[in-house]
Amino acid sequence: MMLEETGKRARSAVPAVSALDTAVRNAVLLTAASYLERDAEKLLAANGEDRKRAEEKGMKPALLDRLTLNSERIAGMAEGLRTVAALEDPVGSVSSMNRRPNGLLIGRMRVPIGVIGVIYEARPNVTSDVFGLCFKTGNVTILKGGSDALSSNRVCTQILREALRDCGVCEDALQLIEDTSRETAVAFMHLDKYVDLLIPRGGAGLIRTVVRESSIPVIETGTGNCHVYVDETADIEMAVNIIFNAKTQRIGVCNAEESLVVHRDIRSALLPALEEKLREKQVELRADEAAAEYLASSVPATEEDWGTEYLDYILSIKTVDSLEEAIRHINTYNTGHSEAIVTQNYEHAQKFLREVDAAAVYVNASTRFTDGFEFGFGAEIGISTQKLHARGPMGLEALTTYKYIIYGDGQIRG
Amino acid sequence: MMLEETGKRARSAVPAVSALDTAVRNAVLLTAASYLERDAEKLLAANGEDRKRAEEKGMKPALLDRLTLNSERIAGMAEGLRTVAALEDPVGSVSSMNRRPNGLLIGRMRVPIGVIGVIYEARPNVTSDVFGLCFKTGNVTILKGGSDALSSNRVCTQILREALRDCGVCEDALQLIEDTSRETAVAFMHLDKYVDLLIPRGGAGLIRTVVRESSIPVIETGTGNCHVYVDETADIEMAVNIIFNAKTQRIGVCNAEESLVVHRDIRSALLPALEEKLREKQVELRADEAAAEYLASSVPATEEDWGTEYLDYILSIKTVDSLEEAIRHINTYNTGHSEAIVTQNYEHAQKFLREVDAAAVYVNASTRFTDGFEFGFGAEIGISTQKLHARGPMGLEALTTYKYIIYGDGQIRG
Repeated sequence: MMLEETGKRARSAVPAVSALDTAVRNAVLLTAASYLERDAEKLLAANGEDRKRAEEKGMKPALLDRLTLNSERIAGMAEGLRTVAALEDPVGSVSSMNRRPNGLLIGRMRVPIGVIGVIYEARPNVTSDVFGLCFKTGNVTILKGGSDALSSNRVCTQILREALRDCGVCEDALQLIEDTSRETAVAFMHLDKYVDLLIPRGGAGLIRTVVRESSIPVIETGTGNCHVYVDETADIEMAVNIIFNAKTQRIGVCNAEESLVVHRDIRSALLPALEEKLREKQVELRADEAAAEYLASSVPATEEDWGTEYLDYILSIKTVDSLEEAIRHINTYNTGHSEAIVTQNYEHAQKFLREVDAAAVYVNASTRFTDGFEFGFGAEIGISTQKLHARGPMGLEALTTYKYIIYGDGQIRG
Repeated sequence: MMLEETGKRARSAVPAVSALDTAVRNAVLLTAASYLERDAEKLLAANGEDRKRAEEKGMKPALLDRLTLNSERIAGMAEGLRTVAALEDPVGSVSSMNRRPNGLLIGRMRVPIGVIGVIYEARPNVTSDVFGLCFKTGNVTILKGGSDALSSNRVCTQILREALRDCGVCEDALQLIEDTSRETAVAFMHLDKYVDLLIPRGGAGLIRTVVRESSIPVIETGTGNCHVYVDETADIEMAVNIIFNAKTQRIGVCNAEESLVVHRDIRSALLPALEEKLREKQVELRADEAAAEYLASSVPATEEDWGTEYLDYILSIKTVDSLEEAIRHINTYNTGHSEAIVTQNYEHAQKFLREVDAAAVYVNASTRFTDGFEFGFGAEIGISTQKLHARGPMGLEALTTYKYIIYGDGQIRG
């Protein structure tokens, strides 16, 4: 019943929020940024409660780190809101306006989606990040964060709602679902009467559950089993640098490389040099037999390795006899995120770009560039690994839809 | 198990089908068109079986008409395929290619979606229409037609598959699910492992079931509770013509008007003239009290009328005191399809365009124009009434997605 009420309030806020001027939306974001800084102590205290509970139940250090706020991170949250305020507003722009033979003038106007739900794990900074992007584009937001971050999320939401109120905007533009039970999570996924889009932000398990369960349209984000394929014509130094960067520059991210696909004829030139470089970061190599021959030290790869997103200093290595086999292997095991070829062969580059099925396909560059800022879109709400609506880094435009507007002077259909 | 096999075959056909040249795809469509004409007798015989069964079980005349094929309709199916062959191919085009400061060249390439499932009712012409649009855009298609049209659909699919084979293309680019049980329909909606997009084509009940049940992304099409709002400044003659056209030009379609919203101050000028015009088609008027005062003969409208898509010679009439009330009424009861205002007031026109939440919003024109051909997109697979991926008439582009392609020369992330 509480949830139904949340949905109703969100839906009622839609007309007012979607009609706000850009200037008002930006003012809210800037006000929210300064309130986060002003109330940093309150936020830190709430986060302290969350961390205390998490430590008592023995949360792993990596997760505890994600849960933790400090002054620097709060400054980062405020800065994030200011960055979004400075981005160009896509809402209201009209594209492809054309006059039809009967005189009708038809164009596509960018408009907010309406109500966006976001389900995420225990990372309190996501609360303000997601609000910033959704509100900038005129949407109403319902958040459901991880239970371990409840105190932080509650205080953060209060601060953001205060900014809304003080700028004269309906506070229900942002609501937090405070009941963190599984039943409520499932009920949220069926709130299609009020929610237009649901975005899960988190690990593969969370995403799978939401896709299976939700009757609201979902955008899948995040999981990346990314490959670099080294063609037989590759420049060895370039290949080593790209793989080292894609694998080790940041291991816990979705656009990191998890698997190397290597052409049989370039194994002897590539693998010893690569192994030496990867030793700097103690990367474990899980190789098939044909690759292991050229490595001083490796673990045999199993079928399971081809499908695993390690998010760790581990790299699987698969040997292929041709570009076709490489593409087939990648299209079988990838998650539709980011894939790269290193090659000096023009035709191979073009074929790889055309035939690999992923959100971002690279020639001679690291997969680590798949990111809203690197692509020039600014802040992103996630990286879509599905094919409908938005694919790849989802900037502001992905949080809008369009409608056709038609100017007539009395036209009727014959 | 059969269904699982169908899914697997479709998925295996994806790489070959998505890599076909435009010329081959067009050749298949033209061949299919000529085979439909060549095998018209066979198709008519199968359709005769379907109709016989349907008549025996007492199918309503309107449905029986939709089920019926004749030489003219088969020629229409062939012509439809030729029209689609002549349309521009969106696949492979690259837009927004930009060089980033680090030298990466990033562009968006249009690509097929993959496997598209379509669930439709007993209208055999849909079989070739849907195949034409999906195959033109490099997609693999799985069809599930209404059980009453099974014989027709089976023969039609055989003919289309023969065209694929004779052009050297994998026949599994098109498959028909012949088991028309409800269990199989539900299992089909959960085939997300193999199917990328599901499009229900049919009435509100079918669409609702698919949206609720499917774990595959769905595009909602079709239902239209469309309004014409007559502002107090409207030109009366224009308003009468637009309403007459939107209501009666074709009653059974989703972009027909179902409800008139009228400003209180224009009732006396509009309603008697409109009633006289609508009498030509014996349109029943279901009016609120304030409108009924100005009508010679009407039935009292109930709350239920505001939400009803009649698809019949019936028009509901709601009186409002302001543009704001009109927008609120429309946004409460509409289905996100097509909405129109008739006005001479500039600000009212702009406000209506901005604030009404629908796929197509008109000023001074009939709602009947919401259609792929009228919008200049050519043939359409349906009219989307949802907000993600595609909205309004869905032409070829709505059956594609994009991927980012990135040309580098060794870039790594710092």
